Amino acid sequence: MSTTIREIAEKTGVSITTISQILNGKGDRFSEATRKKVLHAAEQMKYKPNFFAKNMIKNHTNTIGMVVPEVTDAFFSQLVKGAEDYLNGEGYMIMLCNSSNDTKREDHYIEELLHRAVDGLIIASPHILDSEVFTRLKDKRCPFILLDRERNERQEGRIAVDDFAGGYEATKHLIDLGHRDIGIIVSDASFYNVFERFEGYRKAMQEHSLPVLEKWIVSGDQTMQGGLDATRKLFEQDAQVTAIFATNDLMATGAYRYAYEEGIAIPETLSVIGFDDIELAAFMTPPLTTIRQPIYEMGALAAKALLGKIEHPEEAMPNHLLKLDLIERSSTKRFDSGSSSTV
Amino acid sequence: MSTTIREIAEKTGVSITTISQILNGKGDRFSEATRKKVLHAAEQMKYKPNFFAKNMIKNHTNTIGMVVPEVTDAFFSQLVKGAEDYLNGEGYMIMLCNSSNDTKREDHYIEELLHRAVDGLIIASPHILDSEVFTRLKDKRCPFILLDRERNERQEGRIAVDDFAGGYEATKHLIDLGHRDIGIIVSDASFYNVFERFEGYRKAMQEHSLPVLEKWIVSGDQTMQGGLDATRKLFEQDAQVTAIFATNDLMATGAYRYAYEEGIAIPETLSVIGFDDIELAAFMTPPLTTIRQPIYEMGALAAKALLGKIEHPEEAMPNHLLKLDLIERSSTKRFDSGSSSTV
Repeated sequence: MSTTIREIAEKTGVSITTISQILNGKGDRFSEATRKKVLHAAEQMKYKPNFFAKNMIKNHTNTIGMVVPEVTDAFFSQLVKGAEDYLNGEGYMIMLCNSSNDTKREDHYIEELLHRAVDGLIIASPHILDSEVFTRLKDKRCPFILLDRERNERQEGRIAVDDFAGGYEATKHLIDLGHRDIGIIVSDASFYNVFERFEGYRKAMQEHSLPVLEKWIVSGDQTMQGGLDATRKLFEQDAQVTAIFATNDLMATGAYRYAYEEGIAIPETLSVIGFDDIELAAFMTPPLTTIRQPIYEMGALAAKALLGKIEHPEEAMPNHLLKLDLIERSSTKRFDSGSSSTV
Repeated sequence: MSTTIREIAEKTGVSITTISQILNGKGDRFSEATRKKVLHAAEQMKYKPNFFAKNMIKNHTNTIGMVVPEVTDAFFSQLVKGAEDYLNGEGYMIMLCNSSNDTKREDHYIEELLHRAVDGLIIASPHILDSEVFTRLKDKRCPFILLDRERNERQEGRIAVDDFAGGYEATKHLIDLGHRDIGIIVSDASFYNVFERFEGYRKAMQEHSLPVLEKWIVSGDQTMQGGLDATRKLFEQDAQVTAIFATNDLMATGAYRYAYEEGIAIPETLSVIGFDDIELAAFMTPPLTTIRQPIYEMGALAAKALLGKIEHPEEAMPNHLLKLDLIERSSTKRFDSGSSSTV
């Protein structure tokens, strides 16, 4: 065990109460000699205040709780890294929890983290949070920031990307390449951001007087397997598309996998565009054209805003609307209307 | 703020000290009436003991610290998930820290976690730990388990895979397919497990009276980019191989990317085998033949052993030597010696 105040007391002959007050900077009323003796002994004996005892007094843990839906998802692990790198630089640690996209588990974790007296919370959630959770956060006076895909209304600390514009841009890229019959893979779950991407797709199609056929729209889990299953559905319902907009990169990976199985060449016969620009996107074969979200930066910005709030609770956290960029790689290609459609 | 003991005192007229003792189950010397009054008020007022205060007494946090080299690496996020799922099921949370493969940062995190009085530590590390770290762990009486690729010697809590056997099996698979000129991508850093895989490769080659040419051995970062760079090196030094053993799947992804760039067909012209079987392996095009490590299970086993140690400190943690399996997919193919080699 590390040195305790009791051991310092034994060594110096000074009472525990006195030592405790001196070590906590409240020893003004004791003699200079006593203070020197105690501080010298503490230094010699490498005394380090017990974390809990210290925090009973300072009420500060230098720990930020972070809840993410799925740490194995490349998007979220990148988000965590952005937050962590920033926080580490400022002397904070992250207590990371995985909600597995489950609302109850998420609520439970937020509750547990509050109970553990973290200094603040970063909550990455695809859900509308229970109003009770907000009440708890407020009651505990725990600063928090949401990375919630714009699900929960608020006036400060919004770190958002324009999913609608991203969906529009992805679709317009395909239309500009001459594609007319464009499938879209959306999410099974009702994620607001995916809905926005879909609306962007619909707007781009409408603006170019293109219909959106029901058979072009498929949904699945936002995973590689989900993308594979959704692409299979698309082809099995004879969608006749020449291009696919996968609303995240993992699903695009599944589309590649389906195309490989069926001998469909990307981009020669089928163009695919993703969304996110996870690290993998540049390493897919062919490298994936996608809409880049500044994921790492979002994590870092959330961490920065939260620390600002912890230091200046009276100031509102800044809002950020981040830019999305089209990253053109090799998975999309000009559609030659002379060739037959693929599905 | 939540209900405090002070508020219960105000409501009941009982002293803070008495209430504290009653709520901590040490109130036997008080009257039944007083005890009932206090417990009833605490229930009514939804009193929840302050986490730090409670832990000053119980010295138990239900928190496990976990240090990993890189949470964005699919291998480690899978390992974390295995540990987390097990721990959550047992009512524990994980405080996750990312060492970024840096020994100093790792030491610092272990120290910080100890300072935060976690109940135990899971340390996933590619390093030999500083002996001071072990001393600290011992001094703090903090149970820990290492997922350290067999770097640190110990008698209990070894969760290992036979990397040598895995390297041997991967290479033998290629030899059995008729390959003779087999390149290997190892790690820049001196990771013990990668060295073992390399030794397995060497043994398989020797057993089949095949030479191991220096130009067949390249190294890089254990990342997708590292695999790409290493494969480029291999080809630029005119290695003349027909197959590559990438000692992890991420590096295999980089090899695919190089082959794509250069128009080299996998597996028709070049066979590639990986190591790990991360989720991505099954979704690569072509799906990657690899050596499966039971990553999720390793995380869960480590968590289980650690909790066992926390409950029964006197008992040794079990050792596990886990099986590696060859997963044959589509990235390796019989080499027809009639065709020319590729590099």
